[in-house]
Amino acid sequence: MADVPNGEQGCGSPLELFKNIAAQGELVRALKARNAAKNEIDSAVEMLLSLKMSYKAATGEDYKADYPPRDPALGSDGGLDATEAGEDFVDPWTVQTSSAKGIDYDKLIVRFGSSKIDKELINRIERATGQRPHRFLRRGIFFSHRDMHQILDAYENKKPFYLYTGRGPSSEAMHVGHLIPFIFTKWLQDVFNVPLVIQMTDDEKYLWKDLTLDQAYGYAVENAKDIIACGFDIKKTFIFSDLDYMGMSPGFYKNVVKIQKHVTFNQVKGIFGFTDSDCIGKISFPAIQAAPSFSNSFPQIFRDRTDVQCLIPCAIDQDPYFRMTRDVAPRIGYPKPALLHSTFFPALQGAQTKMSASDPNSSIFLTDTAKQIKTKRAPRWPVPGSVGRSSPRPPPTARAGLHAQGGGPTSMCVLSLAQVNKHAFSGGRDTTEEHRQFGGNCDVDVSFMYLTFFLEDDDRLEQIRKDYTSGAMLTGELKKELIEVLQPLIAEHQARRKEVTDEIVKEFMTPRKLSYDFE
Amino acid sequence: MADVPNGEQGCGSPLELFKNIAAQGELVRALKARNAAKNEIDSAVEMLLSLKMSYKAATGEDYKADYPPRDPALGSDGGLDATEAGEDFVDPWTVQTSSAKGIDYDKLIVRFGSSKIDKELINRIERATGQRPHRFLRRGIFFSHRDMHQILDAYENKKPFYLYTGRGPSSEAMHVGHLIPFIFTKWLQDVFNVPLVIQMTDDEKYLWKDLTLDQAYGYAVENAKDIIACGFDIKKTFIFSDLDYMGMSPGFYKNVVKIQKHVTFNQVKGIFGFTDSDCIGKISFPAIQAAPSFSNSFPQIFRDRTDVQCLIPCAIDQDPYFRMTRDVAPRIGYPKPALLHSTFFPALQGAQTKMSASDPNSSIFLTDTAKQIKTKRAPRWPVPGSVGRSSPRPPPTARAGLHAQGGGPTSMCVLSLAQVNKHAFSGGRDTTEEHRQFGGNCDVDVSFMYLTFFLEDDDRLEQIRKDYTSGAMLTGELKKELIEVLQPLIAEHQARRKEVTDEIVKEFMTPRKLSYDFE
Repeated sequence: MADVPNGEQGCGSPLELFKNIAAQGELVRALKARNAAKNEIDSAVEMLLSLKMSYKAATGEDYKADYPPRDPALGSDGGLDATEAGEDFVDPWTVQTSSAKGIDYDKLIVRFGSSKIDKELINRIERATGQRPHRFLRRGIFFSHRDMHQILDAYENKKPFYLYTGRGPSSEAMHVGHLIPFIFTKWLQDVFNVPLVIQMTDDEKYLWKDLTLDQAYGYAVENAKDIIACGFDIKKTFIFSDLDYMGMSPGFYKNVVKIQKHVTFNQVKGIFGFTDSDCIGKISFPAIQAAPSFSNSFPQIFRDRTDVQCLIPCAIDQDPYFRMTRDVAPRIGYPKPALLHSTFFPALQGAQTKMSASDPNSSIFLTDTAKQIKTKRAPRWPVPGSVGRSSPRPPPTARAGLHAQGGGPTSMCVLSLAQVNKHAFSGGRDTTEEHRQFGGNCDVDVSFMYLTFFLEDDDRLEQIRKDYTSGAMLTGELKKELIEVLQPLIAEHQARRKEVTDEIVKEFMTPRKLSYDFE
Repeated sequence: MADVPNGEQGCGSPLELFKNIAAQGELVRALKARNAAKNEIDSAVEMLLSLKMSYKAATGEDYKADYPPRDPALGSDGGLDATEAGEDFVDPWTVQTSSAKGIDYDKLIVRFGSSKIDKELINRIERATGQRPHRFLRRGIFFSHRDMHQILDAYENKKPFYLYTGRGPSSEAMHVGHLIPFIFTKWLQDVFNVPLVIQMTDDEKYLWKDLTLDQAYGYAVENAKDIIACGFDIKKTFIFSDLDYMGMSPGFYKNVVKIQKHVTFNQVKGIFGFTDSDCIGKISFPAIQAAPSFSNSFPQIFRDRTDVQCLIPCAIDQDPYFRMTRDVAPRIGYPKPALLHSTFFPALQGAQTKMSASDPNSSIFLTDTAKQIKTKRAPRWPVPGSVGRSSPRPPPTARAGLHAQGGGPTSMCVLSLAQVNKHAFSGGRDTTEEHRQFGGNCDVDVSFMYLTFFLEDDDRLEQIRKDYTSGAMLTGELKKELIEVLQPLIAEHQARRKEVTDEIVKEFMTPRKLSYDFE
């Protein structure tokens, strides 16, 4: 603990730096106490000073014992928030950027201290699985990771691992954006053939929102149907509601308490921005999202095994939970979970804004019929929308709801036609003439962004990019392409969802052995 | 909420006053906002000022919004602690007083805002049950209550209620002092014939102490044997380990989350003195001790009933948990639990000090043999000990361990003979001659105090008091009386404990219907 981890002080988070400084300070004191050799003390002091300089460089403030930094990804407590200072803001509740292109994900990798999913890693996944990489990998939608090479090492050495993802069930209906992590997780399950656990954080939604326990649980069950409709294998997948599973598992609560013993309020304050006015349920909740990262939380699947590593595909906004988890893991004798991070699914009105989740008419819900999607959009989409970059940045939204993996913070989602006219972000020009002459801008065009998520054919996507950029393709035509992709996708989803009976949900949600043998 | 509760501002805790001021402030603002009549506003403002004066009188500080007071029973954050200022200090981890007579319980009633168990209440219990009141009631050992009259109303109207008590299993061995709440709870169960739940807070001991989960659970099971040996009816009693039961109950975790949603960090900071450096497990733990106060935490016993009131016999140091519980209860639609508070079991070396729990030789454990008890004591007890009032007050002990109901904070317990010579508190004189001439002082004599706990015969106790006070009885004779009471008590306990097989423990600890029907 006292030694500074290999080279991490340069790129570690301020919180990690903070801890390293504290540990190094302890070391210096210990050396002095036992009258160690002068050069030994000097070198420890030098390291301490260097750490303090790194800390000041990272936070702009002097190190103060007992005053851990707020997570830089969370912005500062007072004064300008991140976007006002020109920086993106990302935490489990809020995603904000002032750029029409959306969050700067390369910067986020640096700030979060994760690793980019580069060509080499994608090639390794292809070699290991013998499968063409999913379009989400090919197109940088899953763009960041932690320890994915470790997972591949394990896989290549025939060692088991498992997948864990989740959803915060804040309402009955899910949007297409919410499917992103599940579509990708299903692909991972198929190509690696591993157990999967899916956490429905109904307890968290109860704590953060104005819901009853029954409502939150009801949403968990409804959302489970949409998740099951993604095609998960019932023999390899366990879906659980926290409210339910906590009272059914001999292992889950024990891991929750273990984690809770090893995380202080100072830490969750730094990581999540909790305050003294937050309820104690919120303050201790991060341990509940952390616990499924450890295999003995599921004794029915893994028996007493504590060494089966976990791989978590999720939207990058969930990373703070798992940074905390990775910090705790070695201290309680468990392997750190690995992660695959996705970008956010942009809102229709532009990649820098958030949808209004409370307006039931504002999104393409998975329960919309194909006809509704088309009808709602028809009057507007054929007309190239105004670029609308000047639409005001929405005020920072109140903290509410997390674990909205893949939908991002439930938010970055398909917006309704009622608001498209005012806000819809198009990369097109104001008139057909101008568009033909100067061409459109795919980097800010939300319809094009959606196609990168849902259109499987790389060549077709590239052709569209070229045609739209050159002006050969009009905004209306681009939107038509998107509708033709989305309509069957949603129709098929709905057809599969209809097949999901209450009995099937019940089976998915029953703690049980999966078709893998662990001793 | 906005109205000040009837007359409570005078005797409420500073925290209650704080809340009342906040609520009254809201009321004033609301009245002004809707342009209420001047006299209506004036009277609300007057009440606000009066509350603020009461607050200053109670805390010595001006009211400051968002800065709730530390619980006065917990002392102030810095500066002099309660005992240095001449006040007793009582919270779930620390009990301290500078008086050889022990804690001033009448003052505690005022500070905690509870009610004295007076002659009228004791008579009512006798009328309602048709049983002679237990010696703990007759002698003021259970001295304080909350809402006991409500429980008797329910009982007289044939409405059900249930008992809840608990123990923090911090080691394998229990002392005679730990038995106090269980002896009394058994009596309550016998005379009222009601269901009883007993919580073993092994999770809490894991969080507070340097224990593994397995150790904490092991202590819970061992301690359960001593509890069962008190004679509880297996058909009417459910004993549970938190670590176990959380994963077996469909109702427990749901109530925990409900409570956690309705208590802020500010509140637990004020009530329990938690700091930002405490782990999130400690911070959220109070909800786990609160949850068994609500009947639907035990669906196997009470089905879905949420309206069965709870009566909690416990040592007064546990009251902070249940003040919090009673604050939350109406906000989540449950009845407030009623309470019966006991005094602390004094340490051998004097009622104002604490035993050293870490010295296995320092206590009369329930596993000691009768011979050991006598042997250990024989060399010292026949000699009247020095009064020893000048023995230094021990330093405030580190916070550790709670739910030590009845043993008080595990602490106020029987001390060993090895330390008796130095510290043993006797009310006797330095020489036999002086003692014969001036008599002894029962108010500070620990042997006499123990007799008030364990000697059933009121007349004999009164005779001993008279004889010792007059000098007719010497300290050695008094101690002999005590040994003659304690030896058979412990021997019988040990005999009963031997009968407690693992199967019996398992049955007590299995969630199941008890012999009461609830729909």
